[in-house]
Amino acid sequence: MNKENYTLLCDFYELTMANGYFLEEMEDQICYFDVFFRDLPLDSGYAICCGLESIVNYINNLHFSDEDIEFLRAKNIFDERFLTYLRHFKFSGDIYAVKEGSVVFPHEPILTVKAKAIEAQFIETYLLLALNHQSIIATKASRIVKASESRPVMEFGSRRAQGESAAIYGARSAYIAGCVGSACTISDKLFKVKALGTMAHSWVQMFDSEYDAFMAYIKHYPDNAVLLIDTYNVLHSGLKNAIKAFKDSGITKGGVRIDSGDITYLSKKCRKILDEEGLTDIKIVISNSLDEYIISELLIQGAKIDSFGVGERLITAKNDPVFGGVYKLCAIEKNGTIIPKIKVSENTSKITNPGFKKVYRIYDKETNKAVADLICLHDEVFDETKELEIFDEHQVWKRKKLTNYYLKELHQVIFKDGKQVYQLPDIEEIKQYCHEEIDSMWDEVTRLINPHEYYVDLSEKLHNLKYKMIKDSY
Amino acid sequence: MNKENYTLLCDFYELTMANGYFLEEMEDQICYFDVFFRDLPLDSGYAICCGLESIVNYINNLHFSDEDIEFLRAKNIFDERFLTYLRHFKFSGDIYAVKEGSVVFPHEPILTVKAKAIEAQFIETYLLLALNHQSIIATKASRIVKASESRPVMEFGSRRAQGESAAIYGARSAYIAGCVGSACTISDKLFKVKALGTMAHSWVQMFDSEYDAFMAYIKHYPDNAVLLIDTYNVLHSGLKNAIKAFKDSGITKGGVRIDSGDITYLSKKCRKILDEEGLTDIKIVISNSLDEYIISELLIQGAKIDSFGVGERLITAKNDPVFGGVYKLCAIEKNGTIIPKIKVSENTSKITNPGFKKVYRIYDKETNKAVADLICLHDEVFDETKELEIFDEHQVWKRKKLTNYYLKELHQVIFKDGKQVYQLPDIEEIKQYCHEEIDSMWDEVTRLINPHEYYVDLSEKLHNLKYKMIKDSY
Repeated sequence: MNKENYTLLCDFYELTMANGYFLEEMEDQICYFDVFFRDLPLDSGYAICCGLESIVNYINNLHFSDEDIEFLRAKNIFDERFLTYLRHFKFSGDIYAVKEGSVVFPHEPILTVKAKAIEAQFIETYLLLALNHQSIIATKASRIVKASESRPVMEFGSRRAQGESAAIYGARSAYIAGCVGSACTISDKLFKVKALGTMAHSWVQMFDSEYDAFMAYIKHYPDNAVLLIDTYNVLHSGLKNAIKAFKDSGITKGGVRIDSGDITYLSKKCRKILDEEGLTDIKIVISNSLDEYIISELLIQGAKIDSFGVGERLITAKNDPVFGGVYKLCAIEKNGTIIPKIKVSENTSKITNPGFKKVYRIYDKETNKAVADLICLHDEVFDETKELEIFDEHQVWKRKKLTNYYLKELHQVIFKDGKQVYQLPDIEEIKQYCHEEIDSMWDEVTRLINPHEYYVDLSEKLHNLKYKMIKDSY
Repeated sequence: MNKENYTLLCDFYELTMANGYFLEEMEDQICYFDVFFRDLPLDSGYAICCGLESIVNYINNLHFSDEDIEFLRAKNIFDERFLTYLRHFKFSGDIYAVKEGSVVFPHEPILTVKAKAIEAQFIETYLLLALNHQSIIATKASRIVKASESRPVMEFGSRRAQGESAAIYGARSAYIAGCVGSACTISDKLFKVKALGTMAHSWVQMFDSEYDAFMAYIKHYPDNAVLLIDTYNVLHSGLKNAIKAFKDSGITKGGVRIDSGDITYLSKKCRKILDEEGLTDIKIVISNSLDEYIISELLIQGAKIDSFGVGERLITAKNDPVFGGVYKLCAIEKNGTIIPKIKVSENTSKITNPGFKKVYRIYDKETNKAVADLICLHDEVFDETKELEIFDEHQVWKRKKLTNYYLKELHQVIFKDGKQVYQLPDIEEIKQYCHEEIDSMWDEVTRLINPHEYYVDLSEKLHNLKYKMIKDSY
């Protein structure tokens, strides 16, 4: 899966532009591009960045095969010298990015590329695709996990995912963001996302009776006896047969799953009956078109639920399936000097931040909670022992003086001169990091509805540069 | 891409159930499963079915590698005899399905599997994943193409797709449903989906002036000179520079692309100015968060647009990203006799249609338009020279007598005893078929808003069977 050649998974214009840069002898022009997003998705107060591992594999595998070159040649628009150049093409630039599992916010560069024009331009499509997809799923999953209030959440959506990679990488992103596992078996094999699952309605239908189906299942899986009790009727049939099967086989630890009907009512009834029967260690698992809002409502209503299986609404981020990451030129180099570039727009929020930049997260020393993010130019340094004044980009009179803080630089060097210099963490490490990242945010930022807007400010130096460039452009 | 081993792209419960069936010696039990959906997505009056080619490749490639078996063995829940069985596992059953590009409606089986219990159950996840993903994108694309009223629509969404396969197969589905091409280069290489594209804003920014950028582009691509004119300002800069570049280079056939701003206003202004300059063959291309509703509104407002580039809202089917295809047991065989199975639910629309079935589409002989679909048992035959009475499943007094009609059976035999017997059509054939399918529908069914509900009826025989089984279950 990770060795797939996705080199041609690029917008065709990356190739027409590349051919043009080559013929204009601009291919060695060093460019800087930022990946960032303008708005938080899903009405969320934060986003989780995922996709870096895919990008690292993509960059390492980047090459045009003979077949690819033949395909392009047949288009009759590419110069032969350019095709020769492509045959030896590889990425030789630098990539800086936030770690997978990071909490990220609008307008900050979550990934920055410094490379020759053609290389930097060419990788745009794949970088955005990987970050946009995996980040929207991680963000959605994080919210669902938050809503479940420490109850395990399982990712069950493969069959409704938008294609194979959506199922596979969606499961991985969901796991990083806090799900305990996934039904997607191949994600366990590839990434050690714990595979989970028990039975479908068809299992129950295949036996002469519901009781027989349950007994057969328990016989083979006594340690994982989660019985699906809504094939016929939860209270009149499924629960009764499950209780009889648990008792007849001596099972005390297991579960029942309900996949339809009025969950609050049914779960309360089931809990009460199970407890009366002494089956207090039989858990109740729910899985029926869930998302963070429904889970939150169910818990408010006092539904008795031990864990959740979440399908289509997680794996597609159904209510907002697009993460709006963009890839924008922020600087070029001329004779070794970085020349900042800006894209000015009538729409203020579409104006880009110029220059080669980095991002600091500012933490309060006492609480270890994140206070704000500070985007600055790449060579700026701050003395943590001194007071730091930050201010709102648009309402510059809104100022805040910080003392007793510390800084964390968010960017890691991932590639240097085309060589991978960052060691990819294993998935448990990424999952743990993501957990810590969310933990470092105030509840006001991570709450489901009407979250507080986290501060993302520009350094004085970057602010001055940006507004001078805007002024100069008019 | 097509040779990827997706065998483990299955819900884990397919494997726990399979192991159970094996140990219960039920693995040879012949089962019938239908894929169908309950509701049309996207407020559409019809859906386009796609995904069959992926399914055929999946079935043909289905096998457990030694590595897969090792992975499963390490779970310590699968019987060694079952793992040996899996090592030799292949699909040996039958698959019936509607052709790719077919117009389909709720409750009709779009694919039916007849196979041994384990085989039939095991392929559930992938079949649903492929059909659900590719059908939602084809349906969305079909609506967007419809809204564009014969203007070319280009698929531009790769960077916002939910993963690699979503970009690749999304482009293919969009092309089948009527798009003229896609920015996704690899889909051209793999499936001959015509790759399209010209330049990004960064191309314009890389040159010393917008005019220089345009002139350079025209020099290299005189036959495909579509200039992006909104990097700085459409009317004050982009259009002026484009006109100057067209004139200075003698280009009369080409285009300008606008990717932001008030499209109706800008496109009218641009058209007027281009025409005044004698550049009547310069086309206007629009690409800015479009979907069927916005395109429809733009055209009603008289926007002057020659073609559309559609991105994230198409490639994710943003307003309704899930196609709700399900996989339900409809029959088993005992001693060579087909025993229909039904799943009864309090929710009437969730009750399944029992038995091994097929679907006829009824056409009016005079207009060649589709009148209704008829779901019936697999062995039912109808004499087209005789009157045919159809009726509504729920309001059985709503009856219609048809004469002067002809029938088309929708199911094709795709696999017979595990052998592929259906030759996959090439993509142009599928695209053409899809076009004819939509053409055969009344406008009332395909209109964007408040479409007419197309009739999908049950044969008398199927109806009687179903309602007898419902009655018997109470």
